[in-house]
Amino acid sequence: MAAEKGTGKRSAQRTRQRVLDVSLALFNELGAPNVTTNHIADAAEISPGNLYYHYRHKEDIVMALYERYEAAVGDIVGGASGGAVDDLWLVIHLTFEVVDDFRFIHRDLSDLCTAYPALRVRFQRGLESGIERMSGYCRGLARAGEIEASAEEAHALAVNVSLVTTYWLNLQALRHASLAAMGRAGDDALSEGVFQVLSLITPYLRGERQEEFRRVARRYLPN
Amino acid sequence: MAAEKGTGKRSAQRTRQRVLDVSLALFNELGAPNVTTNHIADAAEISPGNLYYHYRHKEDIVMALYERYEAAVGDIVGGASGGAVDDLWLVIHLTFEVVDDFRFIHRDLSDLCTAYPALRVRFQRGLESGIERMSGYCRGLARAGEIEASAEEAHALAVNVSLVTTYWLNLQALRHASLAAMGRAGDDALSEGVFQVLSLITPYLRGERQEEFRRVARRYLPN
Repeated sequence: MAAEKGTGKRSAQRTRQRVLDVSLALFNELGAPNVTTNHIADAAEISPGNLYYHYRHKEDIVMALYERYEAAVGDIVGGASGGAVDDLWLVIHLTFEVVDDFRFIHRDLSDLCTAYPALRVRFQRGLESGIERMSGYCRGLARAGEIEASAEEAHALAVNVSLVTTYWLNLQALRHASLAAMGRAGDDALSEGVFQVLSLITPYLRGERQEEFRRVARRYLPN
Repeated sequence: MAAEKGTGKRSAQRTRQRVLDVSLALFNELGAPNVTTNHIADAAEISPGNLYYHYRHKEDIVMALYERYEAAVGDIVGGASGGAVDDLWLVIHLTFEVVDDFRFIHRDLSDLCTAYPALRVRFQRGLESGIERMSGYCRGLARAGEIEASAEEAHALAVNVSLVTTYWLNLQALRHASLAAMGRAGDDALSEGVFQVLSLITPYLRGERQEEFRRVARRYLPN
């Protein structure tokens, strides 16, 4: 800690950054419940005491990573202009990239929510606002005649989009036991996830627009 | 155990039945991880020794209940004639009733699969065959022109139907924290689940058939 004081604020920030980076990699690879703070200190090449100085508990690291995740999701939504079906596939594609980057959150969701009630509250709030946003988006598409759905159906579509996105990695881990302990979800598993979510939307489209959307969706299937 | 021998096979079967019934109620209400074999013996009004005679471990009870669950799901599918969209809503309705009866399985899925690898294997196998069956069903509807979908889309629909059915209670528990510790999932939560799954199918229908299906789906929404 004496050394820490000497190297100043910038170095402390760099250390915290590194701790979060290695923690994310370890959580994704091994599952958050199987990673101890000692693992993290080792991987970050700092002493357990130094790690404790920056993050008192594993929970603090989990929450800091969750903040990164939320910010990444927020960027996607902030970037979408809304109102056009063509933006939707990009939003979904980018969302799955974030889900992949932070896959421990989705895959270990149930364990994490039990272990860290604060995370549960945050995730729940994020999920609600995600559903609300997606619902607004879909209802906007319905009003603009871009999809053929009542307001009620547009909302149901948004809930299903959120559900499939949230639980896709869980389903994959359940179906392919080997994936449960995996590092990377596998590009195929993620592409298939994008395809599944796009499949929720395709049948609401008509004519040329549907054909176009279908072509986009099929790109996510293995050849 | 001497008493057990005296009362014969029939009584033993009755005891096992009662153990399963009270276990199901306790698991559903409190969550399987929070129920001990002592709780179960108490609720079944037998001694821990007697319970041990019938079921050595909690896992044996969980597996016996899982067998009941599988049989109940099998009955639904066996009863569906297949090939008609009108049967589909009934299959989904009945499936959600079984999900409700055995809601601890779906709600505590992640915990249960971690604790009991044998259950994980069984559930995975059941899920795969469920997806296969639903996929065959949907592809049949597509071939018969009952839904407007390619074979690929019919399969994607089946996967989404399975996913939403499997994880609906998890999503509800996550969204409504109070439901997580709940006994009953709440009739509204279940009805909404049926509506969500029916919503996956509605947009694949056309004309009068769609109108009819929409009317059926809307019955599951709160007034």
